[in-house]
Amino acid sequence: MATVDVPTHHKAIIYDKPGEISTKVETIETPKPGFGEVLVNLTHSGVCHSDQAVMTNRWTWLPAPTQAGQVGGHEGVGKVAALGPGSEGAGLKVGDRVGIKWMAGVCGNCMPCLAGRDACCTSGKISGYYTPGTFQQYALAPAHYVTPIPDGVPSDLAAPLLCGGVTVYSALKKSGAQPGDTVVIPGAGGGLGHLAMQIGGKGMGFRMVGIDSGEKEDFVRSLGAEEFFNISNYSRDEEGTKKLVADVKASSSDGLGAAAVVVCTASNAAYAQALKFLRFGGTLVCVGVPEGKPEPIASADPGTMLVQELRIVGSAVGNRKDAIETMNMAARGIVKTHFTTEPMSKLTDVFNAMDKMTLKGRVVIDLSKE
Amino acid sequence: MATVDVPTHHKAIIYDKPGEISTKVETIETPKPGFGEVLVNLTHSGVCHSDQAVMTNRWTWLPAPTQAGQVGGHEGVGKVAALGPGSEGAGLKVGDRVGIKWMAGVCGNCMPCLAGRDACCTSGKISGYYTPGTFQQYALAPAHYVTPIPDGVPSDLAAPLLCGGVTVYSALKKSGAQPGDTVVIPGAGGGLGHLAMQIGGKGMGFRMVGIDSGEKEDFVRSLGAEEFFNISNYSRDEEGTKKLVADVKASSSDGLGAAAVVVCTASNAAYAQALKFLRFGGTLVCVGVPEGKPEPIASADPGTMLVQELRIVGSAVGNRKDAIETMNMAARGIVKTHFTTEPMSKLTDVFNAMDKMTLKGRVVIDLSKE
Amino acid sequence: MATVDVPTHHKAIIYDKPGEISTKVETIETPKPGFGEVLVNLTHSGVCHSDQAVMTNRWTWLPAPTQAGQVGGHEGVGKVAALGPGSEGAGLKVGDRVGIKWMAGVCGNCMPCLAGRDACCTSGKISGYYTPGTFQQYALAPAHYVTPIPDGVPSDLAAPLLCGGVTVYSALKKSGAQPGDTVVIPGAGGGLGHLAMQIGGKGMGFRMVGIDSGEKEDFVRSLGAEEFFNISNYSRDEEGTKKLVADVKASSSDGLGAAAVVVCTASNAAYAQALKFLRFGGTLVCVGVPEGKPEPIASADPGTMLVQELRIVGSAVGNRKDAIETMNMAARGIVKTHFTTEPMSKLTDVFNAMDKMTLKGRVVIDLSKE
Amino acid sequence: MATVDVPTHHKAIIYDKPGEISTKVETIETPKPGFGEVLVNLTHSGVCHSDQAVMTNRWTWLPAPTQAGQVGGHEGVGKVAALGPGSEGAGLKVGDRVGIKWMAGVCGNCMPCLAGRDACCTSGKISGYYTPGTFQQYALAPAHYVTPIPDGVPSDLAAPLLCGGVTVYSALKKSGAQPGDTVVIPGAGGGLGHLAMQIGGKGMGFRMVGIDSGEKEDFVRSLGAEEFFNISNYSRDEEGTKKLVADVKASSSDGLGAAAVVVCTASNAAYAQALKFLRFGGTLVCVGVPEGKPEPIASADPGTMLVQELRIVGSAVGNRKDAIETMNMAARGIVKTHFTTEPMSKLTDVFNAMDKMTLKGRVVIDLSKE
Repeated sequence: MATVDVPTHHKAIIYDKPGEISTKVETIETPKPGFGEVLVNLTHSGVCHSDQAVMTNRWTWLPAPTQAGQVGGHEGVGKVAALGPGSEGAGLKVGDRVGIKWMAGVCGNCMPCLAGRDACCTSGKISGYYTPGTFQQYALAPAHYVTPIPDGVPSDLAAPLLCGGVTVYSALKKSGAQPGDTVVIPGAGGGLGHLAMQIGGKGMGFRMVGIDSGEKEDFVRSLGAEEFFNISNYSRDEEGTKKLVADVKASSSDGLGAAAVVVCTASNAAYAQALKFLRFGGTLVCVGVPEGKPEPIASADPGTMLVQELRIVGSAVGNRKDAIETMNMAARGIVKTHFTTEPMSKLTDVFNAMDKMTLKGRVVIDLSKE
Repeated sequence: MATVDVPTHHKAIIYDKPGEISTKVETIETPKPGFGEVLVNLTHSGVCHSDQAVMTNRWTWLPAPTQAGQVGGHEGVGKVAALGPGSEGAGLKVGDRVGIKWMAGVCGNCMPCLAGRDACCTSGKISGYYTPGTFQQYALAPAHYVTPIPDGVPSDLAAPLLCGGVTVYSALKKSGAQPGDTVVIPGAGGGLGHLAMQIGGKGMGFRMVGIDSGEKEDFVRSLGAEEFFNISNYSRDEEGTKKLVADVKASSSDGLGAAAVVVCTASNAAYAQALKFLRFGGTLVCVGVPEGKPEPIASADPGTMLVQELRIVGSAVGNRKDAIETMNMAARGIVKTHFTTEPMSKLTDVFNAMDKMTLKGRVVIDLSKE
Repeated sequence: MATVDVPTHHKAIIYDKPGEISTKVETIETPKPGFGEVLVNLTHSGVCHSDQAVMTNRWTWLPAPTQAGQVGGHEGVGKVAALGPGSEGAGLKVGDRVGIKWMAGVCGNCMPCLAGRDACCTSGKISGYYTPGTFQQYALAPAHYVTPIPDGVPSDLAAPLLCGGVTVYSALKKSGAQPGDTVVIPGAGGGLGHLAMQIGGKGMGFRMVGIDSGEKEDFVRSLGAEEFFNISNYSRDEEGTKKLVADVKASSSDGLGAAAVVVCTASNAAYAQALKFLRFGGTLVCVGVPEGKPEPIASADPGTMLVQELRIVGSAVGNRKDAIETMNMAARGIVKTHFTTEPMSKLTDVFNAMDKMTLKGRVVIDLSKE
Repeated sequence: MATVDVPTHHKAIIYDKPGEISTKVETIETPKPGFGEVLVNLTHSGVCHSDQAVMTNRWTWLPAPTQAGQVGGHEGVGKVAALGPGSEGAGLKVGDRVGIKWMAGVCGNCMPCLAGRDACCTSGKISGYYTPGTFQQYALAPAHYVTPIPDGVPSDLAAPLLCGGVTVYSALKKSGAQPGDTVVIPGAGGGLGHLAMQIGGKGMGFRMVGIDSGEKEDFVRSLGAEEFFNISNYSRDEEGTKKLVADVKASSSDGLGAAAVVVCTASNAAYAQALKFLRFGGTLVCVGVPEGKPEPIASADPGTMLVQELRIVGSAVGNRKDAIETMNMAARGIVKTHFTTEPMSKLTDVFNAMDKMTLKGRVVIDLSKE
């Protein structure tokens, strides 16, 4: 088996002032893999809205505020640098490319795990939240739980798929939509949305309908949208919603509406509107989590749910099988991430841009560059 | 083929003052079956909350107020008295016992029909609402859509199953619960609840948990409840809910909560509470529709839905296949309706008692008695 | 509503000598639509192997030999020419384009119908077998059961989809394969196979693998095959099968084999081989029916089925919902039939060519040309 | 945490002459649990036909003959005696009762494992076949893979459920039958059959139909059979099969046949017959594996499969989730094993009786008695 030199120390980006947008590159000690673990020499990590929410403590539903010194990040790709004892069963060898995702490790034997609901593992670990994350050059991970990266999928492209790609793939699965069904993606040109358009369309055979602002129309259509609605053409009031709903429904093959809407945006208004796009038996999938005080989905009263037999489904993240399948789709050329690359020291700037909503596509940190 | 004498006129109960609780027995002309129709000599009709809501116009989401002179009722059982032309294909003959339910007829070829969503048929007819209902001695029905009543199931027992039984059976199906899963029924001793307890437990293999007031404990346990919670033992405030939720969860086999809650009551408070009983991936099924202005399900915000990957599903009524399967369960002794019988002239009294919530079990109108 | 002139007589192709390959164009009386029926002015009918099997009585499992004078055909497309009484509910008007398929009519209320298994209707009618088929200029059909042809799908292209397209679509559904799964089509360049490649790949998101002779490689790859195996490169003995199986398995993403094989060919050898391509839990779908004495699928012994938990599923034809969905795929440009067109008088020649296996793609009869 | 004294040596039953029916009680060294393992002090082990097949090398499809000295057995129950390093995550403590089953350990991260197909794990270990089994007082097992035994389920009753119970439960699941559906069990009074009758009926809501010899009628009816057919009343020829098939079909609610047949017997004749009991879309589940040269299921030709859209499904054993669910059913009183208890030294006699088919119910070895 190949061996590689593992340094005693490596660079990591920490949250130095949790609650604020602030990160700092530090040199920390490189750990040794314990039983069943591997040490991964990470080369790339995507930057996700969830990282920002963790860093700033904006997700009030998390059980505890983030601790100072936390290494963030949960979309990491790199090469296995060392194998801990008892990790042979996982079939990995030094040099294999693997990924680390939001669920960094699960127990594998609680009922949620046995049901394929990794996100609900009763003792799961979250990368970048109380478990050292992927904004660093070396990270530990359970050998049996990392995601193999197939040949032909570049590491920088793979990184954002580990969270965004897997998340929308799992959400699209949970939608219950069938091939040929109309699936609507509000925010189709965004970080999650642009992955959902490709995975849902070319990957799963749905008839994808994108909603976004007009300047993204060409981009969204290039991702496979069979219909596009320019949100700017509709007023933000009840009248505008009514018109948009009518247009979306009219565009479906039978005029009855969408089989599913996957809400990738984090806006309460988007949720209220989404339910109206649905046809009989249609499904609204919750992916984006609005910040601030939780509000119930405005139109989700029992009568409305019942008359058209609608469904609302929450989808946190995908499981390990979903991650492998997403990577297979990438290897087959089904889905490509649109991203730019930045060095480690630029992470604070990236988060600030994210906050101002001026980012275009995803950002990937090149962990070989400080 | 046997023939029977069909009278020229028959007795029917009409809503003489829609908007109020008021009914009147009248003599009306007996129609002749048109193409593909049968004339049914009804002997029994169940009385359902939905009848009351239609009569009083309390369901504001219905497309139009009820018209004066409407013959109500949608849980009717009787014998085929005459076959219209072109009805042979349905395999019925004069004398066969059949039932008429809420969906009195559907087109059979729109997308909702093809998807088995009879409730959402784009041109469905509702018994007792703009289509003459089952509170009368003779009613027309599509030959291919009536529900055959198996031998061994008495007509009075069958009648309430056509709505209440089919509705909870379909709702339990849509819950996605699997055999052995814990399913909670708030209002387990009520009209819908007592049917859900039997169909879900003996019929579908779920581990049924009943919630109701203490005096119904023996009754609910006799229906097959493996756990019972006396709602009177819990305060109506947040503290009481918290304690009830903890107790329900503790009683599940893995302590994680219920796989499904089927809300048969028509209370917004019950909906808010129900979502909290669920384990990871659990499903809340909406069956009861609260009267008055629609309110969103209080705890159904995207974050809550997502963290435990919960589902909310609306279930209106079952389809014809569900109705046949419910009748088969009754024929096998799985489910029995608890009911009392009243003559036609007592219907107003029944509705008044329903309004005061003093009814015990279901009421069946004996249509042979004026 | 538009009306059109319906002639008193029209041209039809009959089987004049059932048991042999022989057809004859005759002039027959044009019927009037009965209750719930429409009269369709057919312009195109596809020619299917099943027509030949019916004409020649080669399917010994059919309940009775074909009668002389039978009008064959079951892939017909045309325009509604007249509406019978009671057909309004189906939403058709004169001039609408509709299709007639193998199942020409079903009762809609037997248990198979309620379960969406139109093929198993206890009183279904088969177009071109005891029910006058689509090799004629005018045919009757139940208004609620014809398949609407969407704008933008030419009638000649639509015709073969009504049988071949719907059949493989339904078979692919029943395979249980999920998006991204490897699905193998033996005979990928053939009449059914070339439709399965397109519908399974672009339509349903499967990773399609084609097997056929080498000269069809370019064609099959153009249909979306991600892998192609030239059957001519493998010997017909056990050794050749072993090598082909190894190659097919090696080409799957995890090396474990195919999630499904849809056997579109009518060869016992193909069935025996197909089961070996499968991975754990994989599904072999039976579509092609070998002529002659029925033989059990050679490798389908209980031990083999059990060790890898394999599945074998029989799929006759799709239901009306499948037909509508197939047409929607055609309207979206997902699937195109490769066909040539012939006049009515050439049908015998077509069947002879089919018998000699010299046909390329499907043949469509232009019913406007004698 | 409690500790218990673990001896240096313990008693084990080995196959001293694989290929023959012969076992021997020996004293062997007690191993220490490795990383992630627990040592289980077994008190009871069920005896299964599969043990016999492994010992005698009668299952020719197993990859290699059994080695001399193999400790057999795969239905073991006992208490955790010692925890290896790294086993804490599984939540076990010394003294907890746990079970070891046919699949003694799986990798948890191959595609079959991720798909819940434990039986197909690419590196799974089989208890009693190349992995020391449960016919001994102490055995090692992966901490995360043993089956917790709920309070209230006696260890001797639990043991046979770990194989027989889990196997039929998983098979019944894979049948795709829905509550109320007719499910036929040939050999309903046998070792697997009597568990299937209870789990399928009381546990899953199926309408269970038992077939067995007449003297078992009372027993089978006491297990919940809604119909029973005395196989002795039918001749073994084609005529007898035809009559039995007609009777089984007539007894189903719609006269069309069974939704599923779970073949628990290991007879090729039973398989041939079973397929004929099915209605449209029905499923034959392969559980029993006939000894000797594999034979294809006689009636499983493509035409027969296709006309009624039948399904054949192989089911090896259940996964860990199935095992936990089966134990929960036992804890709820749904299923009871009928068994007798024998000391270790009687195992050879038990296998001989099994060979002569004179066993009644299951046998459990009391491992505290030599």
